[in-house]
Amino acid sequence: MNGLWKQARVVLVGAGPGDPELLTLKAARLLGQADVVLYDYLSGDQVLSLCRPDARLVCVGKRPDGDMTQARIHELLLDAVAGGGLVVRLKGGDPFVFGRGGEEVEFLRGHGVEVEVVPGVSSAIAGPALAGIPVTHRGVSQAVSIVTGHAAAGNDEVDQTLVHLARAGGTIVVLMGMRRIGRIAEQLMAGGLSARTPLALVHAASTPMQQVVVGELGGAAQLVSASGFNNHTLIVVGPVVDVLRSTGGADMVDEWMKMSATL
Amino acid sequence: MNGLWKQARVVLVGAGPGDPELLTLKAARLLGQADVVLYDYLSGDQVLSLCRPDARLVCVGKRPDGDMTQARIHELLLDAVAGGGLVVRLKGGDPFVFGRGGEEVEFLRGHGVEVEVVPGVSSAIAGPALAGIPVTHRGVSQAVSIVTGHAAAGNDEVDQTLVHLARAGGTIVVLMGMRRIGRIAEQLMAGGLSARTPLALVHAASTPMQQVVVGELGGAAQLVSASGFNNHTLIVVGPVVDVLRSTGGADMVDEWMKMSATL
Repeated sequence: MNGLWKQARVVLVGAGPGDPELLTLKAARLLGQADVVLYDYLSGDQVLSLCRPDARLVCVGKRPDGDMTQARIHELLLDAVAGGGLVVRLKGGDPFVFGRGGEEVEFLRGHGVEVEVVPGVSSAIAGPALAGIPVTHRGVSQAVSIVTGHAAAGNDEVDQTLVHLARAGGTIVVLMGMRRIGRIAEQLMAGGLSARTPLALVHAASTPMQQVVVGELGGAAQLVSASGFNNHTLIVVGPVVDVLRSTGGADMVDEWMKMSATL
Repeated sequence: MNGLWKQARVVLVGAGPGDPELLTLKAARLLGQADVVLYDYLSGDQVLSLCRPDARLVCVGKRPDGDMTQARIHELLLDAVAGGGLVVRLKGGDPFVFGRGGEEVEFLRGHGVEVEVVPGVSSAIAGPALAGIPVTHRGVSQAVSIVTGHAAAGNDEVDQTLVHLARAGGTIVVLMGMRRIGRIAEQLMAGGLSARTPLALVHAASTPMQQVVVGELGGAAQLVSASGFNNHTLIVVGPVVDVLRSTGGADMVDEWMKMSATL
């Protein structure tokens, strides 16, 4: 079995935030060469259409009500490897930004499988940009922190991280934080951020469904609940949220106005 | 003049960390369509070869001994706009991660020019990945902060940011920090990070010149000086530096061994 595995090669490939044109040239090339592609729900048809017609496509997306687990993904990776050839594990955004890519690398190498990583455009940075928000801006923010909000309520470690990030004074981007928004906002304010700190919700960044709403940290929970956005939404906190709004960017402002009007 | 400008369109395009294959499909398409391309020194010939043969290429790279300033870049952008057509402003990495992209958007919109942004793969995330370092890893790091080390020595604001980021407990990636490494390491330890915290220097990430050295936060200044790397080097701090090293990834470990031997 080990002999066969050595003929296989796995590449963890970042698929970017959603827009198929935000794939890298390397990602597109590897998709066109792969014998097997394991993909998540966020990979759209346009991305998968880059695969060879005879490639085996395996959906390994996790859904709240589904039975896909990380252990099962590892098993499916080994199955794919056993067949030899080029195996692409396509992951939304960048494989190492909360994508559990590191665990997949660890697991595969632990089984003697060769693994490479191809970075992708992370939604944590691209999402704000596409909503008109520069995550850093001279004189406004000299740091950006990307943090997961996904944790059991009352998780002390995540809470403490938020308090200190607030004190650090840079831009904060929270992924998977919609369900815990009240607690997250509380911790950021406990770290010294004013309730008036600008906050944006960027939903489905870079896709045709992209929507943006802006408000203030103090009203974050209400904003989230009024938005109706699901967990596929970035929370961006800091004065950078406002920095380019006054400059126009007509489409974006229209979108903001429209959304604000519905709240 | 304003009439002419309305016929021009400027797109700020992220060029990724250096490997031409880490350009996005959209970046490649826009380079192939642009009438004028303003680029930095980090854009290689292979990237520029994607431009139309009749496109006007304008180098606006800043060098320590050069006379290119941000104000001059703004002037050159307006010059390009005056000619109409599609103007691509190509920026290393992502335009909004310490790329001063926000300032260029502000300036251009202030002059009534339409501007769009195309995110790129940020070297701050891709660089560590290509050195075998996942910036987040379950159970090890639930946050990643990207911060500039470029500041006058003793800049209180940057120093305080570093202290609080250290307390936040996630991965810290410092860009443009090589010249201030002593001070940076000091502030991170003042924030509670142990001198034994793993640290990596990733030089020229994703290019054929990529080199990686690893050490500890307490020996950061010596590591920087022994490495001979210039400012085009990422500093990565946190336990994620070690997380995949034990798994092999043969080429990477060889590289590390080789570099360590030369120190």
